[in-house]
Amino acid sequence: MSSLRLGFIGLGAMGAPMARNLLRAGYTLSVHARRPEVLAPFVALGAHAARSPAAVAAQSDIVFTMVTDTAAVEAVVLGHDGIIEGAAPGTVVIDHSTIDPAATTRIAAALGARGIVMLDAPVSGGVIGAEAGTLVVMAGGDEAVFARCSPVMAASAQRLVHMGPVGAGQVAKACNQICIVVNQLGVAEAMLLAERSGLDTTRLIDALQGGFAASRIMEVQGPKMARRDFEGRIESRLHHKDIHVALEVAASLGVAMPASALAAAVLDRLQESGGAALDSAAVITVLERER
Amino acid sequence: MSSLRLGFIGLGAMGAPMARNLLRAGYTLSVHARRPEVLAPFVALGAHAARSPAAVAAQSDIVFTMVTDTAAVEAVVLGHDGIIEGAAPGTVVIDHSTIDPAATTRIAAALGARGIVMLDAPVSGGVIGAEAGTLVVMAGGDEAVFARCSPVMAASAQRLVHMGPVGAGQVAKACNQICIVVNQLGVAEAMLLAERSGLDTTRLIDALQGGFAASRIMEVQGPKMARRDFEGRIESRLHHKDIHVALEVAASLGVAMPASALAAAVLDRLQESGGAALDSAAVITVLERER
Repeated sequence: MSSLRLGFIGLGAMGAPMARNLLRAGYTLSVHARRPEVLAPFVALGAHAARSPAAVAAQSDIVFTMVTDTAAVEAVVLGHDGIIEGAAPGTVVIDHSTIDPAATTRIAAALGARGIVMLDAPVSGGVIGAEAGTLVVMAGGDEAVFARCSPVMAASAQRLVHMGPVGAGQVAKACNQICIVVNQLGVAEAMLLAERSGLDTTRLIDALQGGFAASRIMEVQGPKMARRDFEGRIESRLHHKDIHVALEVAASLGVAMPASALAAAVLDRLQESGGAALDSAAVITVLERER
Repeated sequence: MSSLRLGFIGLGAMGAPMARNLLRAGYTLSVHARRPEVLAPFVALGAHAARSPAAVAAQSDIVFTMVTDTAAVEAVVLGHDGIIEGAAPGTVVIDHSTIDPAATTRIAAALGARGIVMLDAPVSGGVIGAEAGTLVVMAGGDEAVFARCSPVMAASAQRLVHMGPVGAGQVAKACNQICIVVNQLGVAEAMLLAERSGLDTTRLIDALQGGFAASRIMEVQGPKMARRDFEGRIESRLHHKDIHVALEVAASLGVAMPASALAAAVLDRLQESGGAALDSAAVITVLERER
């Protein structure tokens, strides 16, 4: 379909379906993972296994990264055998991870000094969206590069929005996470009040989704809260990490975010009580232990 | 269209379009208001003007009330010349106001002692929804009475949900308001962070509405927050009143609602600073005065 050579690093819950979408779209794809059992299914689908991020970069025009946090992006991009050691000038690095915008700016500058271009392109929509190819991409970086790479990113995304210069995608993602974790608290408090009042929560969600209270979080997490079903779709440790990044950005800009700070405190408690791998709908369990 | 005789008390921003919907649907309608200039347009549309709530009730099978708060409902239902003084046994009182569930239970008991039936039927969807006939009704009270009255309420509502016994509609509405005022804070914090970071907020809302951060409040109030356009559609004094009712219900049940308490504190500040008549999107102005 295209002569573009792509690379993908970070074949986890989000990265794996995104890499598969690129293979399905017919792209040539190099992948790297430390564990061979992670690589095998991609090789079976036609991907080239490379022995390091540098090796992936050496054979790619565009390298995607989708890893857990700032430290992991720094390691695969700037670390030993990292992308920066293999990429030719003109290579584009598209980081789909959700990390600190200030770190993004530093990483992009280090790459830029070698003529390597970076887009920060965090996504929203979770594993479901990655599998269905319906993610939203919030991107920062050169607009022409964004436009050129958009058809490739569209393999996993239904909406691609250019937010501004490098780092702007990460700031947008921080805003996204703020809305989610704060809204979660409101939905959780409403569900608790309804339960203790003897209301049928299924019927409540049905009523509330018809008016101004309607939200995607209530749709997706309301029933999970009601059933106390916290099998991880969006693991709380990720929202915990993300809201602390958002609070750091806010602190650096002097923006007061009391509701985000409260949500961070509730997510802190959830981590302390062993809920890191639970779906973040489990914030309701922190509230119900309160008095 | 029907031989049912209806009455409506409370021809304000919400009540007026709801009463007009009943007239348009062809019902016989009696109305009462203290000020003649409020009554005149309804008389012009064919309504009968009555000199008191009691007089409305005396000529109605179903009497609707849509007034500001608990005290106003108590006055028009149980007060001097109130509905209870005019209604025959078997009359149904449908209270569309948003008030304290415990007060609703008391009022229903007082009516019940005279053989008058009450449904609490608060609505969501605001003035826009009332005008378009697309409100959501959350109702408490006898289910057969609810079923019998639903076709009439449908003149203003696209969704009618029976939540349980008397008071259950008000608890559901409290849950609705919790979701709204907490979500508002998250959207406001996200908008402030975006602005201070130099993001285009229109583009941000477009991106965020595609994923898990999506909500009706972001759709409706996000642009108002960005433009600092607070012309009242949902006046903040109403959300302020409602969240304090919700907190009282929660306190009586021992439910911890820290996010609702924070939202109440922000709405308190907005009232103190003269923002009672502003749209509640104006909570963003309280946050931006913080440091």
